Amino acid sequence: MGVDRVFVRLDASDDVVTATRPLEAGTTIEDVATLSLVPRGHKIATRTIKTGEPVKKYAQIIGYASETIPAGAHVHDHNLAFRATDVEYTFGTNLRPAPAPTAADTFMGYRRDSGRIGTRNYIGLLTSVNCSATAAHKIAAHFTPERLAAYPNVDGVVAFAHGTGCGMAGSGDGFAALQRVMWGYARHPNLAGVVMVGLGCEMNQIDWLLEAYGLKQGPLFATMNIQDVAGLKRTVDAGIAKVEAMLPIANEARREPCPASALTVALQCGGSDAWSGITANPALGYACDLLVGQGGTGVLAETPEIYGAEHLLAERAATPQVGKKLIERIRWWEDYVARNKGSMDNNPSPGNKRGGLTTILEKSLGAAAKGGTTPLTGVYEYGDEVRTPGFAFMDSPGYDPASVTGQIASGCNVVVFTTGRGSAFGSKPAPTIKVATTSELATKMNEDMDVDAGPILSGDKTVEEVGRHIYERILAVASGEATKSEAQGLGDHEFVPWQIGAVM
Amino acid sequence: MGVDRVFVRLDASDDVVTATRPLEAGTTIEDVATLSLVPRGHKIATRTIKTGEPVKKYAQIIGYASETIPAGAHVHDHNLAFRATDVEYTFGTNLRPAPAPTAADTFMGYRRDSGRIGTRNYIGLLTSVNCSATAAHKIAAHFTPERLAAYPNVDGVVAFAHGTGCGMAGSGDGFAALQRVMWGYARHPNLAGVVMVGLGCEMNQIDWLLEAYGLKQGPLFATMNIQDVAGLKRTVDAGIAKVEAMLPIANEARREPCPASALTVALQCGGSDAWSGITANPALGYACDLLVGQGGTGVLAETPEIYGAEHLLAERAATPQVGKKLIERIRWWEDYVARNKGSMDNNPSPGNKRGGLTTILEKSLGAAAKGGTTPLTGVYEYGDEVRTPGFAFMDSPGYDPASVTGQIASGCNVVVFTTGRGSAFGSKPAPTIKVATTSELATKMNEDMDVDAGPILSGDKTVEEVGRHIYERILAVASGEATKSEAQGLGDHEFVPWQIGAVM
Ligand SMILES: [Ca+2]
Ligand SMILES: [Ca+2]
Ligand SMILES: [Ca+2]
Ligand SMILES: [Ca+2]
Ligand SMILES: [Ca+2]
Repeated sequence: MGVDRVFVRLDASDDVVTATRPLEAGTTIEDVATLSLVPRGHKIATRTIKTGEPVKKYAQIIGYASETIPAGAHVHDHNLAFRATDVEYTFGTNLRPAPAPTAADTFMGYRRDSGRIGTRNYIGLLTSVNCSATAAHKIAAHFTPERLAAYPNVDGVVAFAHGTGCGMAGSGDGFAALQRVMWGYARHPNLAGVVMVGLGCEMNQIDWLLEAYGLKQGPLFATMNIQDVAGLKRTVDAGIAKVEAMLPIANEARREPCPASALTVALQCGGSDAWSGITANPALGYACDLLVGQGGTGVLAETPEIYGAEHLLAERAATPQVGKKLIERIRWWEDYVARNKGSMDNNPSPGNKRGGLTTILEKSLGAAAKGGTTPLTGVYEYGDEVRTPGFAFMDSPGYDPASVTGQIASGCNVVVFTTGRGSAFGSKPAPTIKVATTSELATKMNEDMDVDAGPILSGDKTVEEVGRHIYERILAVASGEATKSEAQGLGDHEFVPWQIGAVM
Repeated sequence: MGVDRVFVRLDASDDVVTATRPLEAGTTIEDVATLSLVPRGHKIATRTIKTGEPVKKYAQIIGYASETIPAGAHVHDHNLAFRATDVEYTFGTNLRPAPAPTAADTFMGYRRDSGRIGTRNYIGLLTSVNCSATAAHKIAAHFTPERLAAYPNVDGVVAFAHGTGCGMAGSGDGFAALQRVMWGYARHPNLAGVVMVGLGCEMNQIDWLLEAYGLKQGPLFATMNIQDVAGLKRTVDAGIAKVEAMLPIANEARREPCPASALTVALQCGGSDAWSGITANPALGYACDLLVGQGGTGVLAETPEIYGAEHLLAERAATPQVGKKLIERIRWWEDYVARNKGSMDNNPSPGNKRGGLTTILEKSLGAAAKGGTTPLTGVYEYGDEVRTPGFAFMDSPGYDPASVTGQIASGCNVVVFTTGRGSAFGSKPAPTIKVATTSELATKMNEDMDVDAGPILSGDKTVEEVGRHIYERILAVASGEATKSEAQGLGDHEFVPWQIGAVM
């Protein structure tokens, strides 16, 4: 449609399109003319909608006409209402197959003895508690580029430090989540070797973790506690020696062709804007569909952001069990937030409304668009290993570092992160590809943005074209190409296990 | 009593003493002989106690005899019971003056324009959210010792990064606590200059903070957001320039004699053992008394650790208001922990009991011993500015980094940290002095421990002697002497604001 396109249509079946700039009355939109001024990001009806009829965007009902909406009219909360109904969840009623691939794609990955495939080759210092954070950072800091020069196949030595691990209950949701994160990182295929560093008396005992998951010390897995090693300096020295012993082994790893089906991609958004649900998220959703078509895995997360649209994910559930597990997580969240004196009320904020979002459904659909259209094959608790190929959901907060930490723990070996307001997020050991919702942002934060989804707005590119570009970036980055955030050295301070319970 | 002392008496009025080693039956203890084997750390009755009579340790009732206890008997849960009574709190019924000082002590501190007095002279990078953690660390990392060589009066450039700041409610306990921490660090007298670094769209908005606390940008206070500055690299460059502009001004600061009354000392324990309540904590309590005698301030915290002994602190409340505020915090904690599906049940754990602790009162008395004996002049919420000289209480978790972060935010300019199992904790911008409960630990972790409280067990030193030594260390460290943790470079990863609410 050329660079002067003034609106965007998300699906052929939609009743509305979205203005990409402020539109005067009388602007031609497909077959109709706008009846009044329509702000940027707001919706225009492309057919007459009678009172009570459903209104579709994203090929989904986002609400019902509260009065008759003539073709060309501005559609917003004056004529579109969300009808809260007692949702009767149905499972598996909307199962669409992934697009058939034209060829079996590959990338250059690291095949691990475990059978898992890595996209990076780091050595990790995993901490059980904040009390060993400095020890881990000091061990990692010892391994300067000069000291790693002899190990060109090793991407680096990384400290995963955090603020929790003690002053917490020794059982329950928070403890289980932290142990899943520890275990998920310990076995992550992007880590060639792991040294766990604890204090000794913390609640999150390294020994319990080893027992619970059957982990055993070996040439590429070691543990130690500051209290046993007797102090910070001796711990740092011992940690350096342990990493030094791992480096020659880790350096033997070589990239080799691996099927795209070995990719597990974290789908994430942060700092969203009015265009997130229109450009970057649907494009990422298409990339996810392509990946799923290859037998790969896409992992949607951020439960509070899909709240209100969970019935649509439930309709995509491959089995009733999967659908029921999703609804269970929704119910858990309602309790979690209520008992913390908060609210799940995600109704569009005044800022959202000014940006053109009318209903909670419309808002959540924009976030869920990252998950594409294929069947939901599995629902997982935070940090739990994603074991089902295809499109999966992992329960997490929307908060970026906490959500991505869980996705990486769950096995994601690449992260794709869409942003509208702009984020400088980066992660290790899985790299993050950042997708800007507009060309303005892609230009402004050019040193942080890997992909520009803005051309979808101008009409220079389709959602599918940008989606394919994201998919190709995933393969390239998985093969070793550095993302913008990797080039800038991000990922050493973004390990944030979700802290669920009371801090005591 | 010499190095062969086999027991320790905590107060002349106590009915029991504590064995410092396993004692055979027939061992002479003051006027009596032990009647059976008594394990290390366990209690021995030094007089006959009849059924139902109170049993005192720390000059406090720790329980009641559940049978007649003959002199020389092992006292534990077989003959000592905690009688849960409906506590009628009384306020101000136990007001003991601080010891009169022989002279007005001084230290060499930094007098700030605000009137507050610092013990260190750092420039701080304060982050509003994890999304700016790497930016802050990169700015701080630029200022190597070489680049700071021209500014010998500046102790360093420190990043205060953390895992929270978004995905949280924008009001309520958690939000208020985080803003108090931010404000407390922003105005801390140990920071000559502050640069606040945010992302831009986070819940914990820097602008709201400036508004709430009336902070204004100036030569030594600057703020910036990654989204405004346009990306990580430009933010790091801008931050370096802002710090460079502050360095010459910060370098003008000079230490000058200041009264000990300008010291606000955080009283903290972590990794406690059976000796914490017998050696290091009472010694720190005596140091606190000496400080309070000088007009200085000691800040006890760790509400869960004094749970069950709060009525004793209430009796020391200088006013009923102060006492009532303490009880309010106790009630708040009961609700906090209950709604997080946990329990405040701090009854001695099996490990505690094996170590010789019989009742919850005895356990909490050991922790509260850090607070000495003087009147409780104020009770503060987490991170709130401590405004009353004397002995104060700040609500916090027991978890070390979260508790100390609050104490520093509240204005503490020195931290004293007792430990039995051993901790490698260190903090910035206020330095941490670590006190070992036993000589074994002090020897084993000699590179981490500043003070050995073990000689109290052997009888080589009294509680008062070790307490005076701690007090003198406080003055020396406040004057610029490096603690063990400072010498090792700790404190760059221990900034952990208490995260109270749901992560969303
Ligand atoms: Ca989001
Ligand atoms: Ca997010
Ligand atoms: Ca950190
Ligand atoms: Ca403690
Ligand atoms: Ca503590």
